[in-house]
Amino acid sequence: MSIVLHDLAGADPDLRFSPYCWRTRFALAHKGLPVETVPWRFTDTEAIAFSGQGKVPVIQDNGKVVSDSWAIAEYLEEQVPSPTLFGGATGRAHALFVNSWVDAVLIGGIARFIVRDLLDVIDPKDKDYFRSSREARFGRSLEEVQEGREARLPAFRESLLPVRLVLRRQAWLGGAAPSYADHIVAGTLMWPCCVSRFELLEAADPVAQWFSRVLDLYGGLGRSAKRA
Amino acid sequence: MSIVLHDLAGADPDLRFSPYCWRTRFALAHKGLPVETVPWRFTDTEAIAFSGQGKVPVIQDNGKVVSDSWAIAEYLEEQVPSPTLFGGATGRAHALFVNSWVDAVLIGGIARFIVRDLLDVIDPKDKDYFRSSREARFGRSLEEVQEGREARLPAFRESLLPVRLVLRRQAWLGGAAPSYADHIVAGTLMWPCCVSRFELLEAADPVAQWFSRVLDLYGGLGRSAKRA
Repeated sequence: MSIVLHDLAGADPDLRFSPYCWRTRFALAHKGLPVETVPWRFTDTEAIAFSGQGKVPVIQDNGKVVSDSWAIAEYLEEQVPSPTLFGGATGRAHALFVNSWVDAVLIGGIARFIVRDLLDVIDPKDKDYFRSSREARFGRSLEEVQEGREARLPAFRESLLPVRLVLRRQAWLGGAAPSYADHIVAGTLMWPCCVSRFELLEAADPVAQWFSRVLDLYGGLGRSAKRA
Repeated sequence: MSIVLHDLAGADPDLRFSPYCWRTRFALAHKGLPVETVPWRFTDTEAIAFSGQGKVPVIQDNGKVVSDSWAIAEYLEEQVPSPTLFGGATGRAHALFVNSWVDAVLIGGIARFIVRDLLDVIDPKDKDYFRSSREARFGRSLEEVQEGREARLPAFRESLLPVRLVLRRQAWLGGAAPSYADHIVAGTLMWPCCVSRFELLEAADPVAQWFSRVLDLYGGLGRSAKRA
């Protein structure tokens, strides 16, 4: 039986854009595990009440329920050791640093470029919740947060320097082959990629070139994703 | 025969403060390898000409010469696999992200707090070189770079959030036990710790508490380091 994934969707149910759900999608594909995705909206809290919390990704695997992208990756690694996501306990511990850097730096960095664009693609029933929760977080209107984004591009691109430095020495964040570290960063980049036409990366950037290679992995899973 | 390490020193030859040499010191101690350190100053280029380049750390191990802290860590892991620094190829690949984040973010972030203090502790013969090379890098005088550092502390501490998030879930960056990821970050924090009285970390910060635990590793190698 396929694993079932509740996956954040837009007004268009085929538009899937959560940076956390994409980490899980890539991890499932890496393991070669078939998945049945269920489109889910921010306000569908009842639909995942079975998970005991209110956010996606949530997976159901033969009665077992796991939420939180990191916990899901650990669960998948335990259930299906090969091909590995982490390369062992120390590799997993080090990947947690990548996950933490992405959550601390990249998520907030990207949000400032696309948060108003997001409002245009999410489901109408989610819009009030989305605007009020995000405006409370930023302390400004969505329009003000996103305003002047072109001027902020150089600093954002500079913030990717750690990724760029790694790619000078190896093809993937996982080394010679992709690992969950690649899924964390690329999954997060799927978010702006799917919801906005605004180009965060320069084509000549090694980060953009690596991301393009990730899009082609797993039968072009990322490449074929619906974009707004 | 002990490994010989050319190690950056101040006017006081016992003051060792290079963030890169400290990574190597911790890695050697982790492997249980005895080391003979040779105090080296910025302008002692002749003394390490045998390495084909001009920076420390440089190690000599039975005629084999390795420079660059990352290359040295890889070399040590290959020569003495256990106890491991990386936990395998994927763990090493992921540790390179930690190394890259530290070099891209933490080194420059810390330098702005201590670069003028450094001038007071380095060898007199290094001072002209140090001032002119660092002022060229920053485009300002050392005094101007360091000025107003109290006001910049909150942003610096915030920049450590990725480390803090990891330490919420595990005792060490390496997971249940210290790894080279711990050496990279802690080795870099040895730098301000040794050359300046300016306190970068709040005592209550989990990062400070983890750093204190690193200072106690390997017989208190970090704890017993000479401080300016």
